[in-house]
Amino acid sequence: MASSSLDRNIPVDPIDTPFGVFLWGGREKFDRRRDIHQELSSNPIFSKTAVVLPSIARKDAWTRAAYQARELIRLKLERGWSHTHFREAIRMTDNMLPTQPQRFRIFMSNLDRQMSDEQKAIWIPKAERFEIFGSYAQTELGHGSNVRDLETTATFDKQTDEFVIDSPTLSSTKYWIGTTGVWATHSIVVAKLLIDGKNYGNHLFLTQIRELDTQRLMPGVEIYELGPKAFQGMLGTDNGAQRFHNVRIPRSQMLARNAQVLRDGTYIEPKNQKHSYGSMVTVRAIMAEITGWDLLKAVAVCYHYTRYRKQFRKDKSQQIETTVIDYASVKQRLIPLLAKGTALVLVGQNVTRGYDEYTAKNLKTGDFSQLEDFHLQTVGAKVYSTEITSHGVETCRIACGGHGYHALSGFGRMYANTANALTYEGDNYVIGQQVPRAILKHYKNKTEGSLPSLSYLTTIRQGESPTPTIDSETDWLKPEIQQWALEKRLANMVQAHIEDTAAGKDTSYTCHALTMAHSDFVYWRGFRDLLQPLQHEKSAFLDQITALFQVFSLSILHNPHHPSMAQALPLSYTQQRSLRAAHDAAVEDLATNHLAGIIEAYGFTSYEMDSALARADRTPYEALFEEGAKNSEMSGDKMKHLFEMMVDTRQLWKRIEAAKAHKGDMQAKL
Amino acid sequence: MASSSLDRNIPVDPIDTPFGVFLWGGREKFDRRRDIHQELSSNPIFSKTAVVLPSIARKDAWTRAAYQARELIRLKLERGWSHTHFREAIRMTDNMLPTQPQRFRIFMSNLDRQMSDEQKAIWIPKAERFEIFGSYAQTELGHGSNVRDLETTATFDKQTDEFVIDSPTLSSTKYWIGTTGVWATHSIVVAKLLIDGKNYGNHLFLTQIRELDTQRLMPGVEIYELGPKAFQGMLGTDNGAQRFHNVRIPRSQMLARNAQVLRDGTYIEPKNQKHSYGSMVTVRAIMAEITGWDLLKAVAVCYHYTRYRKQFRKDKSQQIETTVIDYASVKQRLIPLLAKGTALVLVGQNVTRGYDEYTAKNLKTGDFSQLEDFHLQTVGAKVYSTEITSHGVETCRIACGGHGYHALSGFGRMYANTANALTYEGDNYVIGQQVPRAILKHYKNKTEGSLPSLSYLTTIRQGESPTPTIDSETDWLKPEIQQWALEKRLANMVQAHIEDTAAGKDTSYTCHALTMAHSDFVYWRGFRDLLQPLQHEKSAFLDQITALFQVFSLSILHNPHHPSMAQALPLSYTQQRSLRAAHDAAVEDLATNHLAGIIEAYGFTSYEMDSALARADRTPYEALFEEGAKNSEMSGDKMKHLFEMMVDTRQLWKRIEAAKAHKGDMQAKL
Repeated sequence: MASSSLDRNIPVDPIDTPFGVFLWGGREKFDRRRDIHQELSSNPIFSKTAVVLPSIARKDAWTRAAYQARELIRLKLERGWSHTHFREAIRMTDNMLPTQPQRFRIFMSNLDRQMSDEQKAIWIPKAERFEIFGSYAQTELGHGSNVRDLETTATFDKQTDEFVIDSPTLSSTKYWIGTTGVWATHSIVVAKLLIDGKNYGNHLFLTQIRELDTQRLMPGVEIYELGPKAFQGMLGTDNGAQRFHNVRIPRSQMLARNAQVLRDGTYIEPKNQKHSYGSMVTVRAIMAEITGWDLLKAVAVCYHYTRYRKQFRKDKSQQIETTVIDYASVKQRLIPLLAKGTALVLVGQNVTRGYDEYTAKNLKTGDFSQLEDFHLQTVGAKVYSTEITSHGVETCRIACGGHGYHALSGFGRMYANTANALTYEGDNYVIGQQVPRAILKHYKNKTEGSLPSLSYLTTIRQGESPTPTIDSETDWLKPEIQQWALEKRLANMVQAHIEDTAAGKDTSYTCHALTMAHSDFVYWRGFRDLLQPLQHEKSAFLDQITALFQVFSLSILHNPHHPSMAQALPLSYTQQRSLRAAHDAAVEDLATNHLAGIIEAYGFTSYEMDSALARADRTPYEALFEEGAKNSEMSGDKMKHLFEMMVDTRQLWKRIEAAKAHKGDMQAKL
Repeated sequence: MASSSLDRNIPVDPIDTPFGVFLWGGREKFDRRRDIHQELSSNPIFSKTAVVLPSIARKDAWTRAAYQARELIRLKLERGWSHTHFREAIRMTDNMLPTQPQRFRIFMSNLDRQMSDEQKAIWIPKAERFEIFGSYAQTELGHGSNVRDLETTATFDKQTDEFVIDSPTLSSTKYWIGTTGVWATHSIVVAKLLIDGKNYGNHLFLTQIRELDTQRLMPGVEIYELGPKAFQGMLGTDNGAQRFHNVRIPRSQMLARNAQVLRDGTYIEPKNQKHSYGSMVTVRAIMAEITGWDLLKAVAVCYHYTRYRKQFRKDKSQQIETTVIDYASVKQRLIPLLAKGTALVLVGQNVTRGYDEYTAKNLKTGDFSQLEDFHLQTVGAKVYSTEITSHGVETCRIACGGHGYHALSGFGRMYANTANALTYEGDNYVIGQQVPRAILKHYKNKTEGSLPSLSYLTTIRQGESPTPTIDSETDWLKPEIQQWALEKRLANMVQAHIEDTAAGKDTSYTCHALTMAHSDFVYWRGFRDLLQPLQHEKSAFLDQITALFQVFSLSILHNPHHPSMAQALPLSYTQQRSLRAAHDAAVEDLATNHLAGIIEAYGFTSYEMDSALARADRTPYEALFEEGAKNSEMSGDKMKHLFEMMVDTRQLWKRIEAAKAHKGDMQAKL
């Protein structure tokens, strides 16, 4: 069976083009990706095809991940990789290693932001050379989003100058603690500080949980690995359940950059209360950028497969069947996701970059004035990007038809490792409420001027902007019309939210659509602003980016995330028809004129996509047959230990009939 | 840690109440469920807690399933279970055994419907006593929905009076063939019949694939098991890839109820062309009924967990945190799914029952006049029920927050085993097109009179029904208003579809929303018709069913499946607000006054739900801690083979620094 895949254009290595470098976020990022790709794809420890992870036992999959983590640590130390380089290498393994990137970042960032200078001098070198393995223990069995009601206690013992960490109830068990079930030696534990019976609220305590030279649990520490996750997700991560039985740590291990406890038990209040935002904001800022890449990878796999697969004939006279990507049912699902993924990545990169620059600055200056805005931006970005990505990845699987359900298509892994993000680092329905809350507060107080992400409230406040004339399909391509429509929708939703809140309604459900509408606008504006420099410099890929922008804009208007968003933009029948026509035309234009070029510019490699539907060296059918079937751990004689049982099962009827006949005979005789 | 679960009302065994019997489809079905439940839940082979399937290797999970299949076969033979009893027992294992219910049904139903009487006399007893294990081989690597282009050939050899079955290309490999990778001994193979070089199209050929006394493959038969599925789905099913290399079977093994081939190669045409619908219709008719149950089980788990979990305080003065089911964000996601699940089950039962009665009749009379209607009904039901169920199951997981992502919550398994149905037995975006196609045909020809499921076209044809007065929230509770709105929306969508088709547009994408709107109406009407006898007989549970009906009706109007459905029902701002108010009030009414009673009447047992979030004997936190964490295969010393590696990894830095220093020294010396 010869390979007929030569026309598939799936790269083995990243291809360096100006458009590609732009999409990947600039030269530095592109080069980092290329270097990591070369390192990993040529190292057998990181092979994605040598072991079929969905086939093996979870503990074996984790063992493999642990060896990968070790190898990455070795590489980081030997090559002097930056933290960013290290984190992105972990991400490229796609395997959520014990050293998962968010966890590494959150641990390091807490040391950095919450430790006193003396503490940093001791602990940061240990963490950086992996002399200790760190984790961050916040969530409890009984409390996730509601951090204030965490139950773990840290009681100051004046006598011994120690804190006593304790888990007083079952529900106080630290739960879902990443990289803690097997791996970590130290946890930053979030616990209520108690001094002389007084509760000072949550503080952070660096607690050793395993012996460094044996990996055994420290006295009083009870830890279990958490068991398997839904969808066979996060195979490389050992989440832990963690209980403390009066575990003692020295006073010097309370993270003391802000609040402090003195030797005599005096509590020194933190200078700044906002520092508590930091930890979650940091993770969400990373998520804003990286989530879009997960979507784009799924889109790329779906593109390559649906460009290969043929089914039915659009026109009965055709000799060859129609390539499935040419059907509206595929195009209209796939192309908008390509545009959305691009928006998530390009705008998300700005959020991440802005937050990084801000953090670097505020650590020095102690200026936290922008933190509320970044908090809002990252909450919105986290909710928006995880909703779009998880639904999008699954849409790609479904658009591939039956073969998308094979584990080797990779969509299952991609979904498992993104759909969890809807509920972690803050349940979207819970943290999403912070956006409407901020909208309400600043709208009422007329204080949105201080928050760039809410500046549109001023426009809304200025009242009914005159409805523009929308006569034709092409009117919908005008940014001012798009802006009017997005603002109009948002204004109606904000108005309804204000009324509902005034009426004392529970808005926790409707908030979600409002957060999505807010983010639609924020991302639309961010994307639009990116176009201007490209127009100015007459960029060679302006047409492609503009086509992506138009599909993004029209799809969030025509196919909003929730029906209530459609209801909030009342259009006449004619306007609706022209919006739909404009949307369909934009999708068609992108599909016909720009799609191949954009996919080529992203240039996801076979290694990055890790899908039997998108191999550089074989067609999807060859890959499904060779890797899926021929290679199956249940093919042929590999199950022969069961052959005898199956043969015997087919003879059960004889024995049962004989027994019944015998019983009948016996009864007749009696 | 004492159990505090006594108030959870999760039954260990089915509870027999009049309302429960009604919901479960009558006395016969209820009793069957109770009997199967007793048999399985008391037999350790079927224990759902003894082995954590998501933790173990796939082949071990399948091995367990194979032994369960054997035990069910033994029970069927010994107890004389009916096929239905057997199929429902398989379903209750939740494990998609090698003898998966759809596959068993489709094999048996093909023998029944497609074999001549002589053939039946030979093969049906063998199949019924499991002397052979059957499978149905239709889908190929290159062709799913487009059955006409299947490539497998069956060439008649006049010389030997045999058919020669062959797979001429890689893409002709039979693929996804259920229970064929390891288990089956005989396949009904769909292949193009060739006689003297002439192609007579697809026919069915009973082909032996494994030796009965060794389980080894027959000569010329090449079979592989397919490998793992996305989301760790269908662990108990060995799908197969199957190739035939000129495999010879006797002429008597072409299924010959309709078409026949005589000894001399003469081809006898089938009397009836419609028989080919049968096979898919049969499976889809089962799916119509059973899919809703999958949704209801997820709803029940979500109910029990969100009634236990507490988080935040709605009112800051509360002592105890608010139970999460009391938030709109949970209620508005969960309650409509309870209503939809009920609609799927109650209306789906009617579809299944109608089709069963019809099949029993038409086999005798040869009257196929209703087949088109059942075909349409089952296509609509399949698309509708699988879309609602798969999204609904995932919505339940997400509404449970972070803990829903633990494999032991069961949502992952439920999603894995329902989300595949979006693309199997006909990709929803492909088969869904048959509904609009029928709408178009019968609307144009004015022939909808012959098809009960399209009778609403007459109403649409009669033109603009006057817009009724909708002044208040309560107007939306009137069935005539609901019917007007559903028909109005459908009429607009049908109109748009007619225009699009006339304009030559590719409607394969927009068809999907139209099929959903059509099914909304069909299910709404079916649900409404169920209420009448209950009103007449003054049923004791009329209030509960009416509350479910109202939530169903208002949710399909207020929160339609696709935004374009919202756009197709143009309502004034005031009407929209009153619809939303009516919807919210109906959800609130059901939640406050009927929810507990309905959940109690469904009475899913701990065994049926199989979720750590809904155990009869322990709280969700106890179950997550004990079964998830303490019981994890990666807890404590179970990973000690890696301890040394981890300890050593923490010392890598020393060796690397020493080597670097040494290298530095060496360079300095040179």
